[in-house]
Amino acid sequence: MGEDNKKKNISYNLRLTIIGEEKFFGPGIAKLLHLIDEYGSIRSAAMAMDMSYSKAWKILRRADKELGYPMLESKNGGDGGGKSSLTPEGRAFLNNYDNMERELAETADKLLKKYF
Amino acid sequence: MGEDNKKKNISYNLRLTIIGEEKFFGPGIAKLLHLIDEYGSIRSAAMAMDMSYSKAWKILRRADKELGYPMLESKNGGDGGGKSSLTPEGRAFLNNYDNMERELAETADKLLKKYF
Repeated sequence: MGEDNKKKNISYNLRLTIIGEEKFFGPGIAKLLHLIDEYGSIRSAAMAMDMSYSKAWKILRRADKELGYPMLESKNGGDGGGKSSLTPEGRAFLNNYDNMERELAETADKLLKKYF
Repeated sequence: MGEDNKKKNISYNLRLTIIGEEKFFGPGIAKLLHLIDEYGSIRSAAMAMDMSYSKAWKILRRADKELGYPMLESKNGGDGGGKSSLTPEGRAFLNNYDNMERELAETADKLLKKYF
């Protein structure tokens, strides 16, 4: 089977979504959390990925609800600038997602060569 | 890492898309082709998955263009009923996609247990 349909410049996209009661953790929230980790701000992170602030809140709240703990903690700065950062549990969950996605991609790289 | 965030009833969804010049082969067209194989009709297959006939044609044409061969062949029946079936190359490509997806899911099953 893998011998048929050989084609140059073929690649793949993989989209991993974690499901609890409903789908709640995929590439979108993972990217958002990485950006929050970088900027310390939900608003800046959402803006950087062209996502509305209300959408960002919605997907973060859904994840918290599914997991039963908060992904983020917020500290209010002296000048009214709130700082958001990942909780230890939130960071561990994000790492687990990233690791699962990375290992899946390693397998997919091999399978692409095998089948296409 | 895999020891944190243990949660019951957690599962995943994986979406594999094959890319040439652009994305052209994912779960949607794979399902459509399986239904065409079952019904012998593009129209019936599209209807069964609540897809418009024009959308079905569009995604089939895009795959043919990317692959450089037709996924389907059509035979006109005596009473005006056209029959569509997979070409050998189209069937081989679909099988390769299905196999890659299945083997990825086997890896994902293991990784889900490892990380969540």
